[in-house]
Amino acid sequence: MRIILCGFGVVGQSLVKLFASRSDELYSKYAVKPRVVGVFDSKGSAVDQSGLKLDKLIKVKKRFGTVKNYAVKNNSMSGIEMLKNLEADVLIETTASNYKDAEPGMTHITTAMKNGMHVISVNKGPLALAFPSLLELATYNQVMFKFSGTVGGGTPILDYAKNSLSGERITSFAGILNGTTNYILTNMASGLSFDSALKDAQDKGYVEADESLDLDGLDAAAKLVILANWIMGMKVTLPDIDCTGIRKVTSKEIRSASKKNCAIKLIASCDKKLVVGPKEISNDDPLCVNGTLNAIAFTSEHSGTQTIIGKGAGGMETASSILRDLLDIRQEIARD
Amino acid sequence: MRIILCGFGVVGQSLVKLFASRSDELYSKYAVKPRVVGVFDSKGSAVDQSGLKLDKLIKVKKRFGTVKNYAVKNNSMSGIEMLKNLEADVLIETTASNYKDAEPGMTHITTAMKNGMHVISVNKGPLALAFPSLLELATYNQVMFKFSGTVGGGTPILDYAKNSLSGERITSFAGILNGTTNYILTNMASGLSFDSALKDAQDKGYVEADESLDLDGLDAAAKLVILANWIMGMKVTLPDIDCTGIRKVTSKEIRSASKKNCAIKLIASCDKKLVVGPKEISNDDPLCVNGTLNAIAFTSEHSGTQTIIGKGAGGMETASSILRDLLDIRQEIARD
Repeated sequence: MRIILCGFGVVGQSLVKLFASRSDELYSKYAVKPRVVGVFDSKGSAVDQSGLKLDKLIKVKKRFGTVKNYAVKNNSMSGIEMLKNLEADVLIETTASNYKDAEPGMTHITTAMKNGMHVISVNKGPLALAFPSLLELATYNQVMFKFSGTVGGGTPILDYAKNSLSGERITSFAGILNGTTNYILTNMASGLSFDSALKDAQDKGYVEADESLDLDGLDAAAKLVILANWIMGMKVTLPDIDCTGIRKVTSKEIRSASKKNCAIKLIASCDKKLVVGPKEISNDDPLCVNGTLNAIAFTSEHSGTQTIIGKGAGGMETASSILRDLLDIRQEIARD
Repeated sequence: MRIILCGFGVVGQSLVKLFASRSDELYSKYAVKPRVVGVFDSKGSAVDQSGLKLDKLIKVKKRFGTVKNYAVKNNSMSGIEMLKNLEADVLIETTASNYKDAEPGMTHITTAMKNGMHVISVNKGPLALAFPSLLELATYNQVMFKFSGTVGGGTPILDYAKNSLSGERITSFAGILNGTTNYILTNMASGLSFDSALKDAQDKGYVEADESLDLDGLDAAAKLVILANWIMGMKVTLPDIDCTGIRKVTSKEIRSASKKNCAIKLIASCDKKLVVGPKEISNDDPLCVNGTLNAIAFTSEHSGTQTIIGKGAGGMETASSILRDLLDIRQEIARD
């Protein structure tokens, strides 16, 4: 499968490492031979229609901070030029989420779809702002659109709700979908002030460059949009979410919750209304996980409430979700 | 789809109710029209090649305690006779689990497979004692063999590990797979003695008629056999499990665990060895659920540890897992 990889940060590099380390198994077990024909990062690109060398990509990126030094003659093709000019089967979009206009991811995805490529996105921006129309565009162009890594990182939450629970009617769900704010709230419950807890999370590299995405609940709201569209069949975008972050949660509130054997968590919920906001939940609720963990509880008509807990982020975790999407695409192509 | 239903207890009746209440949706959404052509319980049977009336089945069972009064002329066909003489596509096997010789479920399943029927079993006995050979028999006869309801009740644990995590390598797992013993241990942690906690569980109808299945860990071990075969590709049966129940867990041990912020749980684990036994785990571990809840944590190579928590039993929950299996079979038939 010929792949164009847009963005080459932690996730993109983890994916290339995963391809390299598992190539034999991918071929023998799934008949998949990932051939990365183009990669670009913020500084430039690397292109080889016959397939880039995976080890070399990683080395060049490490040494120069960009893939543009992959070839002797630097390549300056942009993502869009690649998508228009290279022959490829799948776009893997891993550029940073942007909730203002969703660019550059939005243009990458729509260009790829219009050129008949299947798309795997771990970039949440385009989905948060235009999920319904992207799904329509994919259908119109008869391409597959996969985004397992957007919610839950390596934990296959979307697939679980959509496939493992098929035949069930999910009536509502609620989750802790942002590990960073959960980490901060957990540390506040252990006595840290908001500022110290934020500082600690920043030091550990958990906080987005634009801290507002975590603290004001935007990241959780974007995931809620994706879940609501995909699992509940709604047609909503980011402005439809009633969203409050954790900036106003006080240590006093957390202590008072703790006395009632409760904790304050940033909960994204879908139950008639779509809401992201701090909420008191019982420590005995399986949803009440600590640290950077994510958790989501689906309530279904006949099989009760089911909770899934896992690491919500991490380069290798998200890369593994991309690989799952790629295997799904491979399998569906084979079926046709 | 023509169905033979072996066993008409809580699960069988819940399933028939589910068929009745969702028939329109099943037809419009999944093109499935379940036609139950034969049912039998311990006292007799009801047969109609053109499809039994679902409401009537429930009413007759309620009134007479058996389905044999469904027709004016009582029907005395046994399960095996039905499977040999009725035209059907799927056997749904819901008779009680028996870990001595797995009968009568074993004969039902093998007879159905040999007659070219797909099989859905929520009876764990045949799987615990003969999983590898049953899978071979299904392959040999080119029929599908589904058993989602055997582990986790309505919580699709098997499907999650097999499909949602496809492309991942699960390296180990551990779970609380028996709700009854979890309920007893939870109550012992609240101060009850073993005997009072057992009595309470019995009063609530949580304990199997043969209490040994719960208390000595057999039920958990049977589920571990199924997971090990299906998820890890092992070829094991019940005698391969190192199994200890909860009879020897003392209140003192539980109190001492509690002082360390831990709890004693009956854990079924697969990590090189296959073991069922009481184990101390931290209260902060997502696996540490209380009451009748089940939980299982899968550790995979690239996406960390993922925990699923849900109700492990209940007629309607298990019936919903059977329905999922049936929809899967329908979908795979349509694909051929």
